[in-house]
Amino acid sequence: MPAQERAIRTRQNIMLAAATVFNERGYKAATIADILTTAGVTKGALYFHFPSKDDLAQEVLATQNRNLTIPERPSKTQELIDVVMLHTHRLQTDPMVRAAVRLTMDQLSTEFDRTGPFRQWADLTRQRLEQARDQGELLPHVNPTETADVLVGAYAGIQSMSHALTDYTDLTTRANALLRHLLPTITLPSILTSLDLNENRGAHVYTEIHTTT
Amino acid sequence: MPAQERAIRTRQNIMLAAATVFNERGYKAATIADILTTAGVTKGALYFHFPSKDDLAQEVLATQNRNLTIPERPSKTQELIDVVMLHTHRLQTDPMVRAAVRLTMDQLSTEFDRTGPFRQWADLTRQRLEQARDQGELLPHVNPTETADVLVGAYAGIQSMSHALTDYTDLTTRANALLRHLLPTITLPSILTSLDLNENRGAHVYTEIHTTT
Repeated sequence: MPAQERAIRTRQNIMLAAATVFNERGYKAATIADILTTAGVTKGALYFHFPSKDDLAQEVLATQNRNLTIPERPSKTQELIDVVMLHTHRLQTDPMVRAAVRLTMDQLSTEFDRTGPFRQWADLTRQRLEQARDQGELLPHVNPTETADVLVGAYAGIQSMSHALTDYTDLTTRANALLRHLLPTITLPSILTSLDLNENRGAHVYTEIHTTT
Repeated sequence: MPAQERAIRTRQNIMLAAATVFNERGYKAATIADILTTAGVTKGALYFHFPSKDDLAQEVLATQNRNLTIPERPSKTQELIDVVMLHTHRLQTDPMVRAAVRLTMDQLSTEFDRTGPFRQWADLTRQRLEQARDQGELLPHVNPTETADVLVGAYAGIQSMSHALTDYTDLTTRANALLRHLLPTITLPSILTSLDLNENRGAHVYTEIHTTT
């Protein structure tokens, strides 16, 4: 295996180990020693890639905002739905995304900055809402910044409740219910009728992305 | 001070100390020794009131669902708003309620049951929605169980985002925005126009309760 490829694998190994340890113990209780044991790498290898525990946590946090490029749709509201449902699918299936979201939602972790994901999600959502508004998809009173904050905050709670009650088994149903409750106050009725709010939309978009790339 | 009164004070002391420690360290990292030091009581006194750390955590959790009796209103939708805005006010001002909510939202605490508050909030909300429906305040398609779950989940996330970004400074604004985004898909337009969604509603209800009792 070429050296560069080996380095990439080691890095991925460490990240997955960090995600597992953060998931199990939380940021505060997790130690570099735990992560080393789980990853099965040397201290030198770990510090080469990540100078500190905080760097590791920030890397894990960042994964939830990656690979969010979804195929372009004629309706920007549909793109918004696709992002939500794809994220729902990833939360149910990808341990890295789970760990990232748990770190973000850990109100007890005051030692590291968990504002990043909230801000990034709100920003991406606001941009899509602005595009939707410019295309004439939104009700006239909608303020994209405010609505983005409501959407991101509400989703964060829906997933937390689903995690607590059913370990994400019912997340698709809850995400769908949230969208059905919010979209009618955001989108024009004529747009609403053409939206695909199907519960398997997330899995569908996931397959679409991984088939086309 | 009579013995009974002293016992009540000791208990309150321990609860407040436990809330402080859980708030700072999380459930897992908190120790009985920390709580003893913070409360300044003997081990015997603590174990007399709370047999275990889990008992303490459950007691702290339960505080968020107490004192939620708000004055009766002609509109049950208004009562729902009042509960949300009163809780918002308490989150901003009461350290016990803050600690309870943080424990509930701690996705890393897999050792103790944090489903209780979600279920209780959802239950109380569903009951009020059913009353609202029976009084003819709701749109015909509304399913009180589903809508209660959306409201409770969404609020949980809104408060978490506000906590992360502004330490609850903007919670009133965010709670208000959430209600304005959700109520039009739940309530009849004729009811909407008579609702008080003012941002100081929470403080107002709080004063109302503490003046009348």
